[in-house]
Amino acid sequence: MIRLNFSIELNYDIYDNASDFIFNIHAATTPHQQVVHEQLHVSQDVRSSLFTTPETGSRYLRLQAGNGPLCVRYEASVEITHHIEAPASLQEMAISEVPPHALTYIYPSRYCQSDRLHNLASREFGGWARGYQRVLAIQYWIRQRMMFQSGSTNASTSALDTLLEQVGVCRDYAHLMIALCRAINLPARFVTGIDYGVDQSMRPLDFHAYVEVMLSGRWYLFDPSGVSPPMGLVRIGTGRDAVDVPFATVFGAVSPALPLIRITAVEDVAQGLNMPFHTDQALSSASG
Amino acid sequence: MIRLNFSIELNYDIYDNASDFIFNIHAATTPHQQVVHEQLHVSQDVRSSLFTTPETGSRYLRLQAGNGPLCVRYEASVEITHHIEAPASLQEMAISEVPPHALTYIYPSRYCQSDRLHNLASREFGGWARGYQRVLAIQYWIRQRMMFQSGSTNASTSALDTLLEQVGVCRDYAHLMIALCRAINLPARFVTGIDYGVDQSMRPLDFHAYVEVMLSGRWYLFDPSGVSPPMGLVRIGTGRDAVDVPFATVFGAVSPALPLIRITAVEDVAQGLNMPFHTDQALSSASG
Amino acid sequence: MIRLNFSIELNYDIYDNASDFIFNIHAATTPHQQVVHEQLHVSQDVRSSLFTTPETGSRYLRLQAGNGPLCVRYEASVEITHHIEAPASLQEMAISEVPPHALTYIYPSRYCQSDRLHNLASREFGGWARGYQRVLAIQYWIRQRMMFQSGSTNASTSALDTLLEQVGVCRDYAHLMIALCRAINLPARFVTGIDYGVDQSMRPLDFHAYVEVMLSGRWYLFDPSGVSPPMGLVRIGTGRDAVDVPFATVFGAVSPALPLIRITAVEDVAQGLNMPFHTDQALSSASG
Amino acid sequence: MIRLNFSIELNYDIYDNASDFIFNIHAATTPHQQVVHEQLHVSQDVRSSLFTTPETGSRYLRLQAGNGPLCVRYEASVEITHHIEAPASLQEMAISEVPPHALTYIYPSRYCQSDRLHNLASREFGGWARGYQRVLAIQYWIRQRMMFQSGSTNASTSALDTLLEQVGVCRDYAHLMIALCRAINLPARFVTGIDYGVDQSMRPLDFHAYVEVMLSGRWYLFDPSGVSPPMGLVRIGTGRDAVDVPFATVFGAVSPALPLIRITAVEDVAQGLNMPFHTDQALSSASG
Repeated sequence: MIRLNFSIELNYDIYDNASDFIFNIHAATTPHQQVVHEQLHVSQDVRSSLFTTPETGSRYLRLQAGNGPLCVRYEASVEITHHIEAPASLQEMAISEVPPHALTYIYPSRYCQSDRLHNLASREFGGWARGYQRVLAIQYWIRQRMMFQSGSTNASTSALDTLLEQVGVCRDYAHLMIALCRAINLPARFVTGIDYGVDQSMRPLDFHAYVEVMLSGRWYLFDPSGVSPPMGLVRIGTGRDAVDVPFATVFGAVSPALPLIRITAVEDVAQGLNMPFHTDQALSSASG
Repeated sequence: MIRLNFSIELNYDIYDNASDFIFNIHAATTPHQQVVHEQLHVSQDVRSSLFTTPETGSRYLRLQAGNGPLCVRYEASVEITHHIEAPASLQEMAISEVPPHALTYIYPSRYCQSDRLHNLASREFGGWARGYQRVLAIQYWIRQRMMFQSGSTNASTSALDTLLEQVGVCRDYAHLMIALCRAINLPARFVTGIDYGVDQSMRPLDFHAYVEVMLSGRWYLFDPSGVSPPMGLVRIGTGRDAVDVPFATVFGAVSPALPLIRITAVEDVAQGLNMPFHTDQALSSASG
Repeated sequence: MIRLNFSIELNYDIYDNASDFIFNIHAATTPHQQVVHEQLHVSQDVRSSLFTTPETGSRYLRLQAGNGPLCVRYEASVEITHHIEAPASLQEMAISEVPPHALTYIYPSRYCQSDRLHNLASREFGGWARGYQRVLAIQYWIRQRMMFQSGSTNASTSALDTLLEQVGVCRDYAHLMIALCRAINLPARFVTGIDYGVDQSMRPLDFHAYVEVMLSGRWYLFDPSGVSPPMGLVRIGTGRDAVDVPFATVFGAVSPALPLIRITAVEDVAQGLNMPFHTDQALSSASG
Repeated sequence: MIRLNFSIELNYDIYDNASDFIFNIHAATTPHQQVVHEQLHVSQDVRSSLFTTPETGSRYLRLQAGNGPLCVRYEASVEITHHIEAPASLQEMAISEVPPHALTYIYPSRYCQSDRLHNLASREFGGWARGYQRVLAIQYWIRQRMMFQSGSTNASTSALDTLLEQVGVCRDYAHLMIALCRAINLPARFVTGIDYGVDQSMRPLDFHAYVEVMLSGRWYLFDPSGVSPPMGLVRIGTGRDAVDVPFATVFGAVSPALPLIRITAVEDVAQGLNMPFHTDQALSSASG
């Protein structure tokens, strides 16, 4: 079991009386990720409401704030229990076996236009033996082609742009991997989180985006950008692509500062708490 | 109350042993639309399963069929009770009032890239008084610009293409209207159905696509293509855009024939059954 | 030397009084391609004018026709003298050596958006030794990925679409090859023509599109679609991409029929006339 | 007559031994624009060559420079004689009247995909009386919709993006206007220059981009961005769109500084030299 303590601080200047915010910064609550402790601080005295998407455990905080500075600070301690599997044992699923609630993840979405990539994905990956290794092949195909470059993309960049221009950040890597998986009928989805153990030579601590692909009835973790060990990821949002899980959606005249993020891992062997490590095993932290 | 009887017949030639199909051709079951009677006939002797998306009542039929012809025929009799409202009484909703489950419909999707249309939509529609009339203004803006032309678009055509090229079919009209609504933060979604009363000079009887926009806590019907009276629509699928509710998704080597569709309305004043008619009132056939 | 006799017949129905046509169907006149004989027949009694683009020898016929049928029939006999070179002797040119009039062909154009493909082309082809072999590598890269499929693309399909969707016709193959060449600073351009020796199992006789790349100061022929031996190509139009050399541009209410095309090769060894044949040598039929 | 003195200074740091540059910063030489005096200073001792495109007078400077700083400074004094016409006297040209060399400007180009805008342009502008007023209508249509915002677009932004997103800089305004003109068969082209009299509240002194449309056999000036009086424009490059006339194209590992630009107008009534002024007359500074 992994225990991670993290905090997210978001700061804004608001220029009108009533700006609306929807945040997706709470740790998701799932059978594999328990929130041991959490605390939310909002600098303005406003009402807020929290709702949870039942299928994914994504939690959305909604509030309305007014003129002046706004600081939203969330901190939590979570315990993550991974399901670990030998890659060789994992099977791709026939369409007829995909659970109904997972079917939505074989279809295209705003940033993952898999409908246009059937030929390409079939030609590139159609010859691989089915299973975890094929998904890894997609991940490495992307990693081999892409350059990680902060600031090279924007909010309208999609998997098609990324495939053409071969540059981007973790979000773009994830969108491209999802699009390629769906193009060969593999259910794939987008996960946001905070990652312990990031290679800070690649990028500073920030929100991270990674991928889950369903194999043998479970969602397994893939990090096509390769910036951090998947075992060190705290799940925040789970959705079809970045549209579903923006860490903040702002309606109003507001200027944001850069997010401030901290994360530490707690090692306590007596209590069964281990540090995240790199592994070649298949990791799952979500229910089927 | 409206009673509509309809049938959908889909025919395929299958060239391999195990092709998968997902159909969304069943009448949706919602508090406003009761299925009085329905019958499904599948020409091959195969197992099938039906699942329902709880939030929308969309029903998906899944089956696997083999070499040779496949005929899937669905017929149903539905009773639709509309909620009818005076347009002037309907309010647009503040972001803070939109129910959590409806928030997904203010975000962009595969075919409705509202994120790129904020400036355009704000300039065109920002000056209108808020409410039903503003949504009608969007609908008329589209209808005035577009040419309805069968075969002019394809499965990758999105709202952006439609805005540029100004030609398309009902699906394209709907995607553009949804994108423009979302661009000014109006929750809007895509509905498929069979329409009684279509102007067959515009197009033959076929699956139809229309739009729902949330006002005062309810989803109201809009048909930007204007081909049929909204009161004559049988709801089949409800989703973010055409991705969520294709009438058929086929996995395998299969060639399809054109759908065969029939629909009739039952008039029986003694039983309170009326014919669909054109009205300027606001119509809702979905729960909030 | 190759002698090819060919004819092109274009038929239209015109619905208004004055429709304008611009045709690019005349054999180009270049130092390597002599028009021995040619004849133009226009079924309506109209004035027409012919102009030639000096740099490329492309010839454009302009006329205005009125209500009723219009038949434009062009036939010609051309003699083509190829410059033939051993591939190993051909060099890529430094930017500083590219002749001024050829610089335009390293820039992006409507259908060949090379500006977005620098990373991809550099990664795929940057490691190859410079020269003819590298251009062949690009040609084979495309041929390996693409499926030739009539009717799969349309007039707005560009190299970027083709790279994503991996399906198209000769025009799409050519656009993609041009875009990839320009992305690594190789001057590349688009040529239309009629091809003797087409593999009619791939497609019926039609206008063809192929590619020229400048090496060692000359334009060399490449046919990425591989449907016919480059030696059997009659050059008609030469330009940046399909925009510059449409076989017909029509302004008015006009419906076209399919083009009717014939081509034969004249063998007469005594006169030095040979049949076109497949060769691995580098072929040039244009001045530098 | 207008006399304008201007200078352009471009600074680079070069990180390899042989970087190639192509500059288009020389004042164009045309019958309407005489270069009275000009001087070029290149800080490294390198060979350079200058070539002129005959049809447009665009001049391109090519040089290769090595490691270290590079400063290219061009200054010139030009005299511009405008052809001034009453707008009401200008006619749109029938396709059959467009001079052969101008036909290229009715076709789409990399950034001006007019082929996709026929419906939109016909509907918006088809009802206007033909002539200068219709072109002005296009210009105002754009100006009314667009927001001028430095840094909002990049080198891959095209007229289609601009039409959707309604934000950009002078180059984007020009591309959109050109695309809309071509979509209704008006020959339109892209001009770069330095503008005297810019409203520096909109943007600092920089390269400018504007539009020429052919009417009654001449190219007339339009500045859709409206940042400066067209009479104060020094013509540098003339082409189909920004592809043809980048002020600098750099091949190599080079980092650029911002351009430094100065421009002054010389008033000397005795010599017939006037200051540029705003006028409602139609201005032409190019041959037909």
